[in-house]
Parts: sequence; structure tokens; C-alpha cells
Amino acid sequence: MLQKYLEEAVVCGKKVVHTGAAATYIPELAKADVTKAGICVMKNSGEVLSAGDTDIRFTVQSISKIMNLGIAMQALGYEKTFEKVNMEPSGDPFNSMIKLDIDSKIPFNPMINAGAIVIVDLLAAKFEFEQILSWMRILCLDESLELDESVYRSESLTGARNRSIAYLLRSKDVISENVERTLDLYFKLCSVKVTARSLAGFGLVLACDGVDPRNNVRLLDRRAVKVIKTLMFTCGLYDESGRFAVKVGLPSKSGVGGGILTFSGGCGIGVYGPALDSKGNSVAGMKMLEYLSEKLGLHVFEGPGAGKI
Amino acid sequence: MLQKYLEEAVVCGKKVVHTGAAATYIPELAKADVTKAGICVMKNSGEVLSAGDTDIRFTVQSISKIMNLGIAMQALGYEKTFEKVNMEPSGDPFNSMIKLDIDSKIPFNPMINAGAIVIVDLLAAKFEFEQILSWMRILCLDESLELDESVYRSESLTGARNRSIAYLLRSKDVISENVERTLDLYFKLCSVKVTARSLAGFGLVLACDGVDPRNNVRLLDRRAVKVIKTLMFTCGLYDESGRFAVKVGLPSKSGVGGGILTFSGGCGIGVYGPALDSKGNSVAGMKMLEYLSEKLGLHVFEGPGAGKI
Amino acid sequence: MLQKYLEEAVVCGKKVVHTGAAATYIPELAKADVTKAGICVMKNSGEVLSAGDTDIRFTVQSISKIMNLGIAMQALGYEKTFEKVNMEPSGDPFNSMIKLDIDSKIPFNPMINAGAIVIVDLLAAKFEFEQILSWMRILCLDESLELDESVYRSESLTGARNRSIAYLLRSKDVISENVERTLDLYFKLCSVKVTARSLAGFGLVLACDGVDPRNNVRLLDRRAVKVIKTLMFTCGLYDESGRFAVKVGLPSKSGVGGGILTFSGGCGIGVYGPALDSKGNSVAGMKMLEYLSEKLGLHVFEGPGAGKI
Amino acid sequence: MLQKYLEEAVVCGKKVVHTGAAATYIPELAKADVTKAGICVMKNSGEVLSAGDTDIRFTVQSISKIMNLGIAMQALGYEKTFEKVNMEPSGDPFNSMIKLDIDSKIPFNPMINAGAIVIVDLLAAKFEFEQILSWMRILCLDESLELDESVYRSESLTGARNRSIAYLLRSKDVISENVERTLDLYFKLCSVKVTARSLAGFGLVLACDGVDPRNNVRLLDRRAVKVIKTLMFTCGLYDESGRFAVKVGLPSKSGVGGGILTFSGGCGIGVYGPALDSKGNSVAGMKMLEYLSEKLGLHVFEGPGAGKI
Repeated sequence: MLQKYLEEAVVCGKKVVHTGAAATYIPELAKADVTKAGICVMKNSGEVLSAGDTDIRFTVQSISKIMNLGIAMQALGYEKTFEKVNMEPSGDPFNSMIKLDIDSKIPFNPMINAGAIVIVDLLAAKFEFEQILSWMRILCLDESLELDESVYRSESLTGARNRSIAYLLRSKDVISENVERTLDLYFKLCSVKVTARSLAGFGLVLACDGVDPRNNVRLLDRRAVKVIKTLMFTCGLYDESGRFAVKVGLPSKSGVGGGILTFSGGCGIGVYGPALDSKGNSVAGMKMLEYLSEKLGLHVFEGPGAGKI
Repeated sequence: MLQKYLEEAVVCGKKVVHTGAAATYIPELAKADVTKAGICVMKNSGEVLSAGDTDIRFTVQSISKIMNLGIAMQALGYEKTFEKVNMEPSGDPFNSMIKLDIDSKIPFNPMINAGAIVIVDLLAAKFEFEQILSWMRILCLDESLELDESVYRSESLTGARNRSIAYLLRSKDVISENVERTLDLYFKLCSVKVTARSLAGFGLVLACDGVDPRNNVRLLDRRAVKVIKTLMFTCGLYDESGRFAVKVGLPSKSGVGGGILTFSGGCGIGVYGPALDSKGNSVAGMKMLEYLSEKLGLHVFEGPGAGKI
Repeated sequence: MLQKYLEEAVVCGKKVVHTGAAATYIPELAKADVTKAGICVMKNSGEVLSAGDTDIRFTVQSISKIMNLGIAMQALGYEKTFEKVNMEPSGDPFNSMIKLDIDSKIPFNPMINAGAIVIVDLLAAKFEFEQILSWMRILCLDESLELDESVYRSESLTGARNRSIAYLLRSKDVISENVERTLDLYFKLCSVKVTARSLAGFGLVLACDGVDPRNNVRLLDRRAVKVIKTLMFTCGLYDESGRFAVKVGLPSKSGVGGGILTFSGGCGIGVYGPALDSKGNSVAGMKMLEYLSEKLGLHVFEGPGAGKI
Repeated sequence: MLQKYLEEAVVCGKKVVHTGAAATYIPELAKADVTKAGICVMKNSGEVLSAGDTDIRFTVQSISKIMNLGIAMQALGYEKTFEKVNMEPSGDPFNSMIKLDIDSKIPFNPMINAGAIVIVDLLAAKFEFEQILSWMRILCLDESLELDESVYRSESLTGARNRSIAYLLRSKDVISENVERTLDLYFKLCSVKVTARSLAGFGLVLACDGVDPRNNVRLLDRRAVKVIKTLMFTCGLYDESGRFAVKVGLPSKSGVGGGILTFSGGCGIGVYGPALDSKGNSVAGMKMLEYLSEKLGLHVFEGPGAGKI
């Protein structure tokens, strides 16, 4: 039954790919086949269902932001992690510098580039890329995660705007003096290759409240999971987060590589579709999740409250 | 047991009232006794529990925004309601005009003043204040709602900033030509007197998915309820919404009169505390909800998913 | 010789009228014949030279800002006049509210609408429109100045943006409580009908350092004249002031009615051309002044210094 | 007589040094003796008058912006120079990024850091630092100009904000790919050591319409001189330019090293005073110029027009 819905979702997703375009701001991303769309669901039972193009590897991009945030909270604690970044939606595009320049304060949240750079700066002081990559493999239940060298080089060469953001943060003493080291790590973490299944893996860990359901090992603290889920809901799709929250109602995180990671009930969900809308979100990905949310009533605020009190 | 938690919550709330101050931008609001704090819970069984100062009448202020939004969706439909207002969190203070002036577009969401004025403009074309007041009484399960004439006059006399926002909207053709009529209705709707119990009443209707649990009459469509709940979660506490969502995790709407309306499980919850923080939210109100959320595990993203899929 | 240059200037001006368009934000202004262009020069000897369409009456619009400023300094003194308005170029369009909202301070200068409204608010506390109109007639050496009733009504009806600015100023306590009275006076002052010759008249008074050359009566203090001239140079053509200062180098003030007022040596100059560019400046007017400035070497910073020290 | 005025000006200047403070954003600048104040006037006859502390060497900082602009116009032509930078006052602090980020266009003018970096980027493609330094020596009539190595290193190490601005420009394709080369040249050009006399030297060249009065060699084209003078008047003192233009009325350029360069009649003027106000302008420097302008009637718009027409 679920399999059928997934197939239908992919059909819906493919119908809208023509309304989007591959990311162009990194030359390497522009090469993606924008007709692709796929979805993968991983249940806490271990069962995995897929439909569409789920064997394609793409770079995780901004979805790494929630992984980095989880790792930071786990390694450095909640207080330290949120010392130099807030948790408010900003209403601005992902790469905006306006608020930061006007308010002269810390970034609005760890889901916009400025905030994510703050988190990566914390990680860079403690860890090498390889160590964080190992952690990402664990969180995604996927040993196959690797760096995409050419995307990494492409990001690094063309990342003028992120460089500008990082130096602005440095000028306000929000990040450390090792700006280039932090940027290098940031570019690498964005360039890790995943599949829809890898995303479903981390989605499943979130669905299981931070526990790896295969062995009941806790990977992330309860609080960290709660923070990540909330930020995904309020800020996960750039300046389209609010509309997506109303329409689809699933805490999600997107990346300009074309992926979206979400979860519902006891399942992790990963979708892929490299055709992006003007906000940087996968058009097929959003459509597939909208279809599933409506068909299965997955909206977080669907229906009467369950009666916890 | 719940009664005990409510009493404890009030104790917690009273401890922080000194960190806030009464709203001063409307002279009438400055008269409130800032030591007050109270909470009221209304269950779908009809049972009502209260603790602290719950007999005080205060003006609904921005909490009227969710009622107006509900009435607009019900009376005019979803499409018409969102024709001239978006649903994105803005990251700006409630009365900001920056984004509106820079982007030259429609307001970010119906929870900021600019967006709320758009909604009230739609209502003003169809309804008199008395009609909407009747509707508010029904939604709040409280026949006693009345206009506070002196607050209304105070708002009307000192509402230069809202007037500025309204004329900016008019200059962009976002609202109708009847700017003063719309403002008058807006000021009146903000000046309706409620109690913590009235707020709990509308909270209960939301908890019951739009249905009056006393007679099973549907007051709001399912979709309208979903929209309201989501916007409460992402934008309900001005530019403190994100932090509150992470910390407390209850879809809530605050007003500068000192009230906060929320719900959880099968209960509606209304809190009152006129001492406000710098963002305009009740300090005691937020503290009481934080206490309850932690004690009872009410955070929307608390714990593993229930397994809808 | 000068007459010949004026004729040539008009030919140049007429050649570019097709690149502009009549102001559309006030319906009445949209009716102007955009093919018109004319120039009038008034010498301190009393001689008047004209070329092109100089018999057309048009509304003074923003050019009234320098007259109002002069009258305010004369009637209230320099200190009082600049208590609530600064003298910095803003780099923003004439009707921008961004800086005002972000900085929460007084308007940047009296040449943008916000600053002009501050000045008119000061005048409104002391004078009726008719009194200021008398003053304008004296300053322009033109008894024929009259209110254009239909433009005034049109401004008043469609002035939502100016109304928004005025209420924003009121909300910051920058202007008095009599917002509507101030706006009414502002709209009236913008709607005074002038000719290119009237503008040349006030230009001549400025050229003569504030003195009416016909009778040597001082109309404006030396300091007031210096202030006005400087602000015309730095802020007189909205967000095109800097480019015009570099290119033409004449302290000038434009209005969306199509007029530009300037002066050079011992002459006042008024130009008219209702086709405006996107900034709101007369395209023919700017072209004619550019032609004259180049032909006659009128740029303020043309050539070596005369050797005052 | 002039000597007496200069002495009095220095007395006035010294009286206000306590209202300012040395620049702190570059550690090296913080070491300046803020009690110093001096003025130097160079006449086209060759005569040089000085008063106060005029033997102190300080870094030219932003005053290099007008030299670079002159060199660029001379070497590359007017059109090429202004291809990627506008000539509008911005009303923003010298290091603001807001307008650049919002408008997504080229910098407002070559007097703010963003615009100056655009000009230096053009120069960097053609010239080494030593070549530009030679040019600066010629323009300042001062062979002694040298790089201050320690200020240069200090700027380079702590220039995060300028780096951020440069990469933002790069991300918009406004400057070349050699961002670090451009920044290095920019930092070096800001770190050239001058005296009040060096500034008076370039001031004299501007007063002489671009000609070296000692040998009548033309150093800058007439048009280039006109452009520089106008931009000095409208944008030369950061976001205090408008007020200074009204009050003092001399086209001037300031630097955070404490210098201000201006000219009047046939004289070049250089002033020095490292105590800065909050805008980054020398408090003693401005005071001395204000004194002279008032005493000698130097305001550009002082008195009646001379009668060019």
C-alpha cells in the first residue's frame, strides 16, 4: 500500500520537474539531470521502500546543516552550540547578509548559511573533516558516504558569497580567526555524497528520537533531537519554510543538491529531485512530500490532539 | 494532579514577573497590575481547571489575529484569505515595515500587524464589528466577550504606527480604499476583553480540530485549523516564535494585553500575565507554559513518532 | 548669444523626451503633454530670456521643499528648523521609509518626503496655506502663483504613501499630533502652480544671496541661502543627485511636475519638461541644464579656484 | 594674516580633541597621540604655511580613495572607471554592506569602501603597488611617501570586514577573481604614510585644476578633477558629508588616520588630528576647517554668484 503511494508520489513529482532548474551557482551542480525524482522510506522495522530514481548520488549541501548541528550539540553541548547563533526564522533567503549587517548580532538560526558557518566553526576547532564524515555515516546509517571532490573544489573556488558571510562573521568576532579553515570544512561538509536512502537513514534516527533502531544505541540526545526537529519545521526550507509547514506539515530539511530529508511516525524519508525552485528547494521533492502528507494525513497538526494532558 | 502542576506553574510564573513590564505603547495597557499571573485549562470533557489570577479581564490584542484569520478562512475561503498575505515567518518585530518597504510585496504572514491588517480589511468589507464579536464569542465558548471602550479609544488615538502600516499597504494596493474603516475595525478587534478562560475556550476548539466539543458543531474547517496551528507554531510569538517553539514546542499566540493562547492534546489553555518582555510576550505566560511543557512532555516534537505511516 | 544657447538647449531637451514618461502616481499629473520642454533665465539686471514651452503652468511639487525650508529657517530659525531633520544625502528614493524604520531616528534631509513633511509640520503650527503661498509668491518674484485645486485633490486622495510616512514620523514623535493638518498643507504646497519663469525667479533670489535684486530687499538670510544651495547640490534630484552633481554641477531642485530650479552666476534658471525618468526627474530638464553647463562651463567645480585665500 | 588664522584654527581644533578617540578597528591606529592637531596650507605661489603638529607622519587611509580614483581615471579613462561603481551618496556608514546586498548592484560611490575596492581592483590588474605609490608621490608633490609596514600588516590581519565586502563584490561579479591581490593592494594603499603637507600638496593640484603649479605639468585631466571635487563635496566625509558640506562647504576627503584634505581658491590644505568622531572623521580637523571657512568665507556657496552667465 505504502509502496503504491510512493510510486504515485514519484509520478506527481516528475510532473513538476519542468518548473524548476538545477542549481547554477556552483558549476558542478548545474550538470544534474533535472528530470530525476525519487523517494525512499526507511521503517524502524528495518524495511526499506523506494520509488523512482533513488540510486543517484548527489551532494548533501544544506542538509548537512542539521547533521552538523546534531554533532555540535552532542560534542559541545546545547549551551555552547547556541552561544553565537539564535533559533529564529529569518524570512530572508538562505544567503542573505542584510539582517546580520543591520543588527550587528549573531545569525538568526543554524539553517541559514551564516548560522551554519558558526556551527562549523565550532566543529572545526575540534574535529577534522574525516571525523565528522564518520559521524555523518553513523547518523545516516550509511557507510558509503564520501566526499565529492569535484563539487568540493567547485564550491571552494566559487564560494565568494559564503566567504563574504564568513568574514563578516569574523569582523563581528562571531567566529574564530581560522576563517579559511572553517570555510574549507564547510565546503567539504556540503560536498558529501548521499542518496535518498542516506537521507531516509538520518530521518529514521530522528523519528526514533535519536536512537539507531537496529541496535538501540542512542546517537543523539533527546533535547538535540527536539531542537533539530523544531528548527527543521520552522526554518528547514529557506524562505519557503512557512508555506511548506502550512501545506505539508513535515519537519524537513532541503539542500540545493536536490535532496529533502524528513520523517513521520516511525519512518525516515529521503527524497531527491535536482530541479529547484527560485528559493532553492527541490520542486519534485516538495511535491512528493505534499502528496504523501495529504494522502496519509501526515501533517503534524492534522486532526485533533491525541490527549497528552 | 494537573491542578497541582498548574499551581506550580503559577508559582514559577510569578517568580519572573519582575523581569517584564506592562505594554506602554498604548497608555491604557500601562495600567495593568504586572504582578498578576494565571492559567486556565479547559478539557474536551467540559472540565475547567484554573490557578492564579484567572478572573482578570484584559484585552485580547494580537491573539485576535488567529480568530480573525479563522473567521476569514471560514467566511471567504482559503484562497481569498491568502491572496494578499503570505505565510512565512519574518524574523522581524511585530510592527516592522522594513520587509514590506524593501520587497514591495504583500506582508509576510497574518501574525504580524501588516498581515493582520490585510485580513481585517477583508473582513471589514463584509462584516460589522458586532458580527465579528459574535463570532469571537462562539469561537472562545464565552458569551461575555465585550469591547473595552477605553482601550479601543486609546488604541485609536495612539495607533500612528498601525496607521502608517495600513497606508503603506494601501499605497501598494494591498488593502482597500477604506483604510480608516479597516483600522477602526482592527483597533476594535484588538480591544475585545477576554479572560484566561476565554482563551482556553478557543484553544479547546483548536484542540478539537475546529469542533465545539460540547455539541459537536464544527466551527472551523479542518484546513483552517491546520493553517492556524501551523502559523501559531512558526509565527505566534513575534520574533521570539522560533526560540519558544524550540523550548516549549506548543503552537501559541500571544498578545500585548498579557495573554497567550495554546492547546495540547484534548485541552485548550489560556494564560495571563501582563508583564511583557522586550518582544511583547508575557514573561509569566511563557514561563508557565514552559513549566507545563517540560513537566508533562507536551513539546510537539517530544519523543519518537507515533507511527502514522 | 545666451538666447542662442537656450534655443539649442531646448532642441537637445526635446530630443530626449521620448525616454521619459509623465508621473503616474498622481492621476492628474499623468495628463501632462510629455513632448513639452522649455527654459527660462532671469538675470539680476531684470532681463528675462526664454526658449521652448515656458508658458505652461505645472505644479511645483518637490521644488516647494526648498521654498518651505527657506520660509521655515526665516520664520523659526536654523536651530528649530533642523531639530528633527538631518542634512545627509540618503541614497534612497524620495519616498523611501527603510532608513527611517531601521534607524528609528529623524529623516535624513528636508529634500526627501519624510524630511519635507517634518518642515511642513513646523510651518503648519504657525501658518495657514494662504500665508505660505504669499511667501512663495514673494520668493518666486511671481504674483500669479495659485493652488491647482484638481492636483491638490488628486494628491490628497491618492497620497497613501505620504500618509504612511507622516504616521510613521508621528509614531516616533518626530511630528506633531496634527498629522492630517500637516498632510493637507503638504499636499497643498506641492500643488501650487508655477511656470519655468516662477522657478527662475526664486533661482535669481538664491543667485543674489537671498536678496530681491529689483529692490535690494533681503528675503532670506545668508545662512539660509547657503544651507538651501548646499542641500540642492547634495540632495536636490532624489537618488540621482550625485550623478547630476558630477555631470552638471549646478545646485538644483526638481519636482515630479516636471520642473527644475537652479541658478548660476547672477542668474536664476527654471526649466520644464514633464517627461520624467525612473528617479522622478525631468529628462528634458536635466538635458537642457547639462547642455548649458557644458557650453558655458557652469559646473561649480569647473576650472581652477578663484583664489579666495 | 593667514598664518594668524591658521594658529587660531589649531587652538580651536585642540579644544575639541577630547571629544574624539583614535581609530580602534586597526590596532596600530589606536597608538596615535590624540592630542595632536595641525594644519598646512600650500599656495600656488609655492609658499607653504603651517601651524600646530604638522611634522607627524600618519597613514593616508581613505584619503587614498581620491588619489586612486584620479589615477584610475587617468590610466583607464572615465567610462571604464565608472563601469562598476556609481556616484551617489549612500547615507550609510563607510563600511556598510546593506545597500549592496539589498540592491544587488554596484557600489554607490568610490568614497565608500566597497566602491574604493572596485577602483583598486581595476588598478591591481594593471599596476604594482610601487607604481601607484610613485603616482601618489607625484600627486602629493611629496617624494617622501612610504608604506607604513606595521599598519599595512595590521590592516591585512584585521581587515575581515573589507574582506567580506570584497568577496560580496566578487560574488556579484563586480570585481575580478583576484580578490586577495586586490585586497592586498587596497590595504597597502591605505597604509601609505603622509603628512599634513603631503595632503596640502594634492589639494593644491586639485586647486590648480589638475596641474602641478611648479612646472605647469598637467597631472590629471580637467574632467577627472571635476569628478573628484564633486565626489569630495557630496561623499567625502562618510555619512557626515552632508552636514559638513552645509557647515563648512569645502570639498574634502577624510581618512581614519586623522587627515583631511581640501582646497580653496588657489591653495591646497591638509589637516591632521587623530581623534575621530563616531563617523570616523577627525574632530580637530573638521573644527579647524570650519574655523577657516567661517573666518575667510570659504564656503563654496558663500555669497552671490560671480556671474559666469
